[in-house]
This record gives sequence, C-alpha cells and structure tokens, in this order.
Amino acid sequence: MLLGLKVGLLKFEIESDSLEVIIIIYGDAASPFEAIPLMKDILLLEDRPKSFPSRTKLMHLKLPSGSRIRARTVSVTNAKAIEIPHQWYNIVADLSVKPPPSLHPKTLQPIQPGDLSPLFPDELIIQEASNDRFINIPPEVIDIYRLWRPTPLIRAKRLEKLLETPARIYYKYEGVSPAGSHKPNTAVPQVWYNAQEGIKTVVTETGAGQWGSALAFACSLFGLNCEVWQVRASYDQKPYRKLMMQTWGAKVHPSPSNITEVGRKILQTDPSTPGSLGIAISEAVEVAVTHADTKYCLGSVLNHVLLHQTVIGEECLKQMEAMGETPDVVIGCTGGGSNFAGLCFPFIREKLNGKINPIIRAVEPTACPSLTKGVYAYDHGDTAGLTPLMKMHTLGHDFIPDPIHAGGLRYHGMGPLLSHVFELGLVEALAIPQTECFQGAIQFARSEGLIPAPEPAHAIAATIREAHRCRETGEEKVILMAMCGHGHFDLAAYEKYLEGSLVDLSFDDEKIKASLATVPQVAF
Amino acid sequence: MLLGLKVGLLKFEIESDSLEVIIIIYGDAASPFEAIPLMKDILLLEDRPKSFPSRTKLMHLKLPSGSRIRARTVSVTNAKAIEIPHQWYNIVADLSVKPPPSLHPKTLQPIQPGDLSPLFPDELIIQEASNDRFINIPPEVIDIYRLWRPTPLIRAKRLEKLLETPARIYYKYEGVSPAGSHKPNTAVPQVWYNAQEGIKTVVTETGAGQWGSALAFACSLFGLNCEVWQVRASYDQKPYRKLMMQTWGAKVHPSPSNITEVGRKILQTDPSTPGSLGIAISEAVEVAVTHADTKYCLGSVLNHVLLHQTVIGEECLKQMEAMGETPDVVIGCTGGGSNFAGLCFPFIREKLNGKINPIIRAVEPTACPSLTKGVYAYDHGDTAGLTPLMKMHTLGHDFIPDPIHAGGLRYHGMGPLLSHVFELGLVEALAIPQTECFQGAIQFARSEGLIPAPEPAHAIAATIREAHRCRETGEEKVILMAMCGHGHFDLAAYEKYLEGSLVDLSFDDEKIKASLATVPQVAF
Repeated sequence: MLLGLKVGLLKFEIESDSLEVIIIIYGDAASPFEAIPLMKDILLLEDRPKSFPSRTKLMHLKLPSGSRIRARTVSVTNAKAIEIPHQWYNIVADLSVKPPPSLHPKTLQPIQPGDLSPLFPDELIIQEASNDRFINIPPEVIDIYRLWRPTPLIRAKRLEKLLETPARIYYKYEGVSPAGSHKPNTAVPQVWYNAQEGIKTVVTETGAGQWGSALAFACSLFGLNCEVWQVRASYDQKPYRKLMMQTWGAKVHPSPSNITEVGRKILQTDPSTPGSLGIAISEAVEVAVTHADTKYCLGSVLNHVLLHQTVIGEECLKQMEAMGETPDVVIGCTGGGSNFAGLCFPFIREKLNGKINPIIRAVEPTACPSLTKGVYAYDHGDTAGLTPLMKMHTLGHDFIPDPIHAGGLRYHGMGPLLSHVFELGLVEALAIPQTECFQGAIQFARSEGLIPAPEPAHAIAATIREAHRCRETGEEKVILMAMCGHGHFDLAAYEKYLEGSLVDLSFDDEKIKASLATVPQVAF
Repeated sequence: MLLGLKVGLLKFEIESDSLEVIIIIYGDAASPFEAIPLMKDILLLEDRPKSFPSRTKLMHLKLPSGSRIRARTVSVTNAKAIEIPHQWYNIVADLSVKPPPSLHPKTLQPIQPGDLSPLFPDELIIQEASNDRFINIPPEVIDIYRLWRPTPLIRAKRLEKLLETPARIYYKYEGVSPAGSHKPNTAVPQVWYNAQEGIKTVVTETGAGQWGSALAFACSLFGLNCEVWQVRASYDQKPYRKLMMQTWGAKVHPSPSNITEVGRKILQTDPSTPGSLGIAISEAVEVAVTHADTKYCLGSVLNHVLLHQTVIGEECLKQMEAMGETPDVVIGCTGGGSNFAGLCFPFIREKLNGKINPIIRAVEPTACPSLTKGVYAYDHGDTAGLTPLMKMHTLGHDFIPDPIHAGGLRYHGMGPLLSHVFELGLVEALAIPQTECFQGAIQFARSEGLIPAPEPAHAIAATIREAHRCRETGEEKVILMAMCGHGHFDLAAYEKYLEGSLVDLSFDDEKIKASLATVPQVAF
C-alpha cells in the first residue's frame, strides 16, 4: 500500500504492509494547511487497514505567521515489524502485597540464595528473588530470539465468521519457535546464564518432551551438554520428541534410570514402572547436586521462568497497540503457569496502571484443577518432597492426574507467583473437560489453518465460550488468546478424538480430597 | 533502536528493529545544512545495523536561495516487515527461446486448453500457458499468505562460525507455513481458483504427505472437500501426515483403493501391493475426470505451480535488498522443481537484466538424478502414461528411485519449464548422496536450531560444500539457500542416521539405462 500525504510543503511517501502511522503536524504556512481534505484522502484509500482512522491524529496548531513547518513522524509500526522487547517484566515490583517466600523443606525457614546454588546459576537465583520491575534481556539471548520472535499476533477472522460472533478474536502464536512452543523463551536465557558461569552440562526432566526439546535446542546453540530424564511411558510411546532432542545432540534417559541412586532404588522395587514426572525431577536434581559443573533447569512454575516468558506479553502489548486494539478479555491455559503469566503479566501491569481494563482468565483441565479445586497452601514441587515448600494452589504433591492428552497441564501445583496474583483477585479461572477442548481445536484448525497442541486447546475452548456469549449479547468484545504451541506431535490425540474414542475422564472429588490431605501443615 | 535525525528544520524519529532508512534530502535553508555531522551521528549509534552506512544516501543539492526545505522518506524497510508480493513472476516472458509445448499423449500434437478442462479450472489453464511477465495474486490468497508470509530470511551466523567460512550464508525458511513447507504457496491459490469456478471437491495424490497436507489445509480454509490418495506404504508407515490431513477435514484413501477402476484392477492382480505415486496419480485423475464438480490438483512440475512458488523469490529479493546483500550463489533442492524455481526464477530475471550475477545451482539426490543423469526428452508425467507428454529431464516414466528419505525428490522427471531454463544454461546442477545430506542437516540443526526436512538437507549439503570452498579460497561469497521445510515428521530418518544405519544406496547406472530405454521417441 502506498500512502501519499501532501501537507503544505512536506511530502511523505511510506510504503508498508498493514501500516499504521501517527502524524502530528504543527506549524503554519503561507499555503493553505489542508488538514481536513487530507484526512478524507486517507479515509478513502481502499486498502487502508481498518484500524487506520482511529490511530491517526492530525493536529493543526496555529503559530505566529512566519514560523516554519516542521514534520515529525512519531511512529511507523507494523504488527509484524515491532521490535523484540529488550526487557522482561517482573510483576512483583507492582504488587501491593508481596508474595510469601519459599521455605526450606527441613528448617521451614525462608529459603536463602545459597540454598539454591547447587541447582541454579547465580544470575537466575537473583532473578528468582528480584524486586526490580524490569530486567534486561542479554543481547545474546535477543539474537537467538530473533530466530522466531516477534511471534505473530493474528486476528482469527475465519474463526469469528464460523462462530458468527461480533467479538474480535486475536491469538498470539508461539508455535513458530524451533521447538514448537513458548518453552524456548526461557530455555535460551537459562542455558545462556549457565554458560556464562562456566557450567558445562545442564540436566532436566521432561514428560511428553516439550520442555526437554526446548532445552536441547538451547544447549545446541550455546555448546552445552544436555541430559534429559524422560518419563519412561513417554520415552517408549512417543519417540518423536525424544528423536528431536537427540537430533539437537541431547542425551535422553528413560526415567527411572540406572544412572541415579533414586532411579536404581525405584527400579529394584518395581522394574517395570512407567515412571513419573516426580521421579524424573528427583533424578535430574540428584545429578545436578552431585556434579560441580552441572546445574538443573526447570521449564515452568518458578519466578524466573515466568519472568522470561513475559517477552510474549511485552511484545503483544506493542502489537495490539499497533493494530489499534485493546483487549477486553485475555485468555490462556495454565499448567505450571509460565505461558499464561508470560502473556498476561504485562497486561495486568497496564491494568494496574489504569490504562486498560481487561478480564484476565486462566483455563485449566477439569482433570487437574489446581486453581479451581486446589487449596492455597505451602506444598512441595515434586512427589518425593525434596524441593522447597512453595505457597501455591495445589492438589497435593502426590496427586496423579488422569492421563489427559494435555501433558503440559498435568502438574499438581500452580506457579507460586501466579497463585499469589490469583489470590489478589487479578486473575479469574475456570476448568474445561478435554473433549470440549478438542472440539474447539478442530474448529480452530479448520478455520484458522493451524493445528494447536492440546494445552492451548483449553484456551481456544474458553475463547469459543466467550465468543458465543458475545453472539448472544451482541457485544463486540476484543478477545486475546495465548496459542502457545502446535500439535505436530499430538496428532495421535486428534486421531482418538476424530474416531470418537476420546472421553472426559470422570472427575473424582474423593481422589482430590485424599491427595489434599497430604499437603503439609505449615504455619508461616 | 531510536534514531533521531535532525536536518535543518526537519526532525524524523523512527523506531524500528533492524532498520534501514534511505533519506534523500534536497533543498536549501537559512540554517546550516548539517549533513556531514548528521552522518557521523548515525555512524556512532551503537545499535545500528551493520548494513546501515552503505544503505544510507544523503544528498545535499544546492538550490536557489529562498527555496523551501522538502523531505521525503523514500523507504523504511525491515527484512521482517517487507510487504508480501502482490504478483507472481512468469519467467516465460523473459526467455529468448520459449519452452516447447506439451503434447497430447494420443495425437502427439500440442495440447489445447480444452484438453485440460476436465482436470483444472480455467484460470489455472490460462496461467499454465501464459506469456505475461507478472500475474496478480488474488487479495483473498494474499490474506491467507499472511498467516505465514513473509517467511523469514535468516543469516546462518552460527553455521558460518561452525564451518569457519568467510562466506555469508542466508536461508529463506518456508517451514513456518501451517503445513510445514513451501507447498501451501500453490495449494492456496489452486483451491481458491477452483472455489471461484464452483468446484466442490478437489482430489490429489500424495506420497509421504507434504503435498496432501498442504492441499487439505487450503481446502479447510475455503470450505472445499479434499480427497487424497496416499501411497499405501506411506499411509501405513507414516500415520502423522495422514492424521494432519484428517484433522484439516480431508478424506485420505490408501492407494490403490477400491474406489477407482484403476485401483480395483491393480488390487485384483496384487492385493498386497505397497502402491506407487504413479498409481495414486491415476486414481485421483480418474475421479476428477468422471465427476463434474471435482478437479485435480498437482503439487509441483507444472508451470502454474512453479509460478505460484515465485512468491518466495520475489519476497526474498526485497529482503536481500533490505539487508544490503547480493547473492553470489543461489542454491535449492529439486524434485519436481517448484521450490527451486520459486526461489530462483526472480533472481534469474534480475540476472538477465544485468542487475546481479549469481550462480544458480540445483541439488538433486544421487538416487534420482534427473538433471545430471537423465535425458531431455518428451516423456509422460506418470507411470501409467496417461498424462500429456512434456519435454523435460527424465529418467524414464517407469523409473522407481530407491527409497531414500527425501520423498519429495523421488520423481522421475523435472518440471518442463525448469528443464528448459536448465537447457538454456541459466542453471547448473549437481547430485549429492543422502548421508552427506543428513550430516549437513545435523550440523544445521545443532548450529541454527531448525531441524530441516530431508529435501532441503540437499541444499544444505551443497551450501556447506560451497562454504568449505570459500574457506579454502578466502572468498567472502554470499550464499542464499532455499530451506523449504521442517523435518518434524521425518525424525525416524534422523534416528537412522544417528544410529548409523542410514546408507547411500548404491547408484545403479544399468537401472537408469533400462528405464531411459522406455522414454517414448517423439519427434516434435
């Protein structure tokens, strides 16, 4: 699209796709100042973006005769061309009530930085406890982010049409990353900080493999060794994510393994165990604490992980602004909370500042409803009870969710910082069963063309519910949705849904009650 | 990055990432015209893109005193922000010798538009025979292209470092499309033209499933039915691409099937046949010609398919320009030729116009070397000999290549238009064995972070050869490479390579000789 604006003696010609321009013109001239006709010309342009008129400000200030004309192009932005944010956002700085500290599992006293040193590099320990509002993203990390960032913010026009809704639906798509989800946003800085401190190897656990493959990807770029303990059931049944990690050079062990003491003990008792995420965490942690040049990485839950993911929301704020839109509802799925917090925390800041007023809505599976059915209490992050006690929404650290296909949402707890934000009333939550999620995912795939992972299918289902409400009320709400990954490695779940064999696992209140009874009683 | 430029009475502030600005300033003023200090300010900016100085033109023309200052921002571009091309490029218009016509398989006379009507909509038949230099891309198609276009052009800095080469390597990455390759670039317009002419169903064949999934994706967006005949061996062994097609709503039949006469006949003779692409083509064509509301779609080879893919090269020309680079070598892999032609044809135009002078290099597998070992002759496009005779580089229409993993490069012929361009000496070709390709793909994945499909692994291997030559000679060549898709569904091939069981299938000259003997003798 070519815009030609002639104003007095100034001529701008700007060529761009989905362009937005704010022009402030001030001054005076001998020749007539054709503000109004010019405005009309812009409005008549056939290809103008819909948001153009509302974003155009044209000011005519009369100045003393003899003044010269000055023109200032304030911003030339394009939702695809915005800059990658240079800072992550730490919501702790803006909370009136600070989140409660994590506790040492033995002393029950607030955890000290030194307690975490065997696991994490210093910089990440500092970030974990930081009160700074913004933390600079290292240029080396931004350089890697460029491979897939800025990620697209897309208006779901065809989905809107299918749903016959007056709502405008936007989705922020993180599936363009090399590993196919939002996980590399934190894997890259975690590996980079480890590399800076001379660490040679990082270890982690993974279930279905999203996090393990993101970490393997990051390690390949910075030349670190990567070892992943993958829950044996997934290791055997879902070979593709394992192959992806191996292609990037990672060593992948089925968990439990013979490499660790924890693993050997469990294998002695039950040689054919399918393993669990709790066991895999214990194995990776054991290797980290027993090797000086090795640290541990976690893919969600912790403050520094949520922090790194805010690159999504910071970017999206700019993109929404460039599109001339303000969200009324922001929706994302929650497992440990990092994808959700990553998109929403910057929007909550703007809400706290009174600039916007969206509802912030978390969606979890009915099979693992930590926010909607859990308690807010101190609990362990792992099944074995080795990690610090964190105050969070939890179903109990030995809760084993039913095997739903959204593997990334099968965690017994919720990130402590997101839990705290939820307690402050800044976020609302709902739970949706998986068949409704897959129904929404199919509608999304067939209208928008992208096949979602089962995790963001939860956000899609909640978005569809909201869009249906708008159809009933006639409200033209702007819905912003976190589409955090593609479903290329989840097609077997789609097959089950399409052949009608996917079921909603019966919700078991008794099971949750029993599990909640194991939450430790901590008075702090 | 914020650039503040103060020129006389004009002030521009432009905020952008990897910005390029050309400013032409002309005029005269009472105040000193601070061109030279300003240039210095730009050069001193810490974050300035490397290409900035060379792309900045600052002109100071003295005009009669009393003239007014005028400023014109000629272009504000950014490699990520360039516009999607609005026209495809038809290289036929620029060839001094026009390509020979396709012939009717019975009459051996040049094919007439009407002969193709049972298979294709009118608009595609017109495009197939067009001599127009540019053909407008329908706005509805551009609107879909926006989902993944412009695709990134990325400098492979980490690969350069790994190879210790002075060459600068760029790759144009088409794997960001929803189907994961360049194929949707033509699937979308093909389905759109069919929809415009009232067609309700399109049919096609697919091997591993790249093309079938691209067509299923396009059909889901425009509401057409899609039926795909997938070679039975792939249908059984590689369920993920089939599931992808089904998720987008396509019907997928294993080929040979009981639905067609061709299929039934073959199944009677050999009920356990693994099928072949030739058989699958015959089945899809049979269904198209026997149903009035059904047409056939092809994913490569034909002129209109190559035409649609030129959106890659047109976009890339602008991106290279925005980055201030001119390629010395352009490299792509060739199966039917559409990905290669899509990137290269626009660069060949600029070469014919004398603006640039790159070497254009096609890479094919040694197991299916149509350009390097085939003959240039009239031959059929399918095994059964039902299609028109096309003059092309062919290994003989009943040549069955060894089962290498680059399924998209296992075609006996080469697109006739690309064959003709090759005969004119505008393109050179080489063949590379698959283990070298996988070795290159692993190097690429572990340095650049993207896992390539086995097809572009051929382009990567050739790029690495060129980069090694540059290391020896010290030449700072600019290499541009077509990275046409990701390998998410090819990880089993990587597994074989990593465990050492992937082999170079022995090259059989006798087999080619026997197959070439079946090429029909046509004097035209």
